Amino acid sequence: MDTNNYPRISFQQRMDAIIEEAEELGKKIIEDHRKTIELLSEFDEEKSKTIKANSIKLDEDSFHLERQCIRFMATEHPFAGDLVFVESLIRVGSHLKRIAYLLSNIAEISSNAHSVKIPSHLDEKIQYMGDYVQMMLSKSIYAFLNQNIVTAKELKDDDDKVDDLFDSILKEIIDLMSEDSENIKAYMDIIFTARFLERIADRAVSIGARTIFILTFKKPRG
Amino acid sequence: MDTNNYPRISFQQRMDAIIEEAEELGKKIIEDHRKTIELLSEFDEEKSKTIKANSIKLDEDSFHLERQCIRFMATEHPFAGDLVFVESLIRVGSHLKRIAYLLSNIAEISSNAHSVKIPSHLDEKIQYMGDYVQMMLSKSIYAFLNQNIVTAKELKDDDDKVDDLFDSILKEIIDLMSEDSENIKAYMDIIFTARFLERIADRAVSIGARTIFILTFKKPRG
Repeated sequence: MDTNNYPRISFQQRMDAIIEEAEELGKKIIEDHRKTIELLSEFDEEKSKTIKANSIKLDEDSFHLERQCIRFMATEHPFAGDLVFVESLIRVGSHLKRIAYLLSNIAEISSNAHSVKIPSHLDEKIQYMGDYVQMMLSKSIYAFLNQNIVTAKELKDDDDKVDDLFDSILKEIIDLMSEDSENIKAYMDIIFTARFLERIADRAVSIGARTIFILTFKKPRG
Repeated sequence: MDTNNYPRISFQQRMDAIIEEAEELGKKIIEDHRKTIELLSEFDEEKSKTIKANSIKLDEDSFHLERQCIRFMATEHPFAGDLVFVESLIRVGSHLKRIAYLLSNIAEISSNAHSVKIPSHLDEKIQYMGDYVQMMLSKSIYAFLNQNIVTAKELKDDDDKVDDLFDSILKEIIDLMSEDSENIKAYMDIIFTARFLERIADRAVSIGARTIFILTFKKPRG
C-alpha cells in the first residue's frame, strides 16, 4: 500500500496523530505502573494477570507507534527539530515497552514476594520507592510530551534517591535473610521487586535525557 | 585575589589548562578503577588503603577543577558551545568524584567479600563485570575529552549489559546464601561490590550523555 496514492493529509495532522498515539501509550503505562504499585501492598491474582497481559499489548502498541513514525519519516521527510522529535518518539516508545516488561516481571514474582512477612517500616519503604518511581515515570512522560526541560532535568537527582532507596532495602532484606534462611526465595523476590523498580527509574531518566536532547537541539515543532 | 590584576592570558590557553586538568583527573580515576578491579581477584591491604586515600585526593582535585571552571566563566565570559563545555566539565568532574567514592566503597568491603569462596565461574563473571565497567569508564572519559559522539552513544547499550550482569550475579549469590547461611555477610559484600560497579557504569552513561549533549549543541570549541 503506497500512502502516496492517498490524498495528502497535512504534515501537522499526521504529526499530531503520532503524538496522540504516544500519549495514549504513555497513559497506559502510567496506569499499569499504578496497578503494579498496588501489588506491592497486597497480592491480587487478577491484577497480576492483567498487568502481564497488558505488557504484551503494550509491546504491540509500541511496535505500532514505531511503524507510524518510520512511515511518517519516509513519506513526509521531516527535518531538523521535527526529525529529531520523531526519532525520539521511537526511542521513548522502546523505553516504554521495556518498562511494561519490568512491570510484568514485578507482577510475576508478586505472589512469592508476599509469602514472607517483613517489618512494617520496610514494607513502607518499598511502597515509598514504588510511589517515588511512579512519580518519576509520570514526570518523564509528561516532560517529554510537553517538552518541559525543567522537569526533565529533575529526573537525574530523583534517580539518585531511588538508587539509595534500593541499596538500603537490599541491605535490610539481606539482614533479614541471615536470620530467616528458610524464606530466602521470598526475600530474593522482594529484592528483585525493588531492583525492577530501580530499572524503571533508570528508563524514566533516559526519557528525561531524550527530552533534554530534543530541547537542546531546539527548533520548536509547533 | 583578583585575576583581573594579572596580565590577561589568552582565552584558549586558560581553556586548554582546564581541559588538561580534567584529563589528569580522568586518568587518575581510570588508574584507580584498574587497581580496584585487581582487588576483585585478590584482596590486598595496601592497595585497598591506597584506593581509599586516593578517593579523598580525587575529591579535592574535582573541587579544584570546579573552582577553575567557575573562575574561568567569571573572568573570560565564554558563551555558546564554550560555555556549555565548561559547565559540562563541572558536571563530569562531579561524576568522577562520585566514581572515586564508589571505588573507595569497593575497597572498603573487599577484605570481607573475599572471606567466602564462591564457584570459579561466578568469580569470573564478577571480574568480567569489573573489566567491562573499566572499559565503559575509559570510553566515557575519552569520548568526552575527544568529543566523540559515536563512542558516547555506545554507552547506553553497554550499560544494559552491565545491568543484566548485575541481576545474574545477584541471583546466583542469593542462591548460594540459601545453602550457606553462615556466610551471609560476606555474600552481601559481594553483592554490594557488583552493585557499586553497576553504579559506576551508570555514571559512565551520564558522562556519555553529557558528551552527546555538548555535541548536539555543537559549536566546536577548537
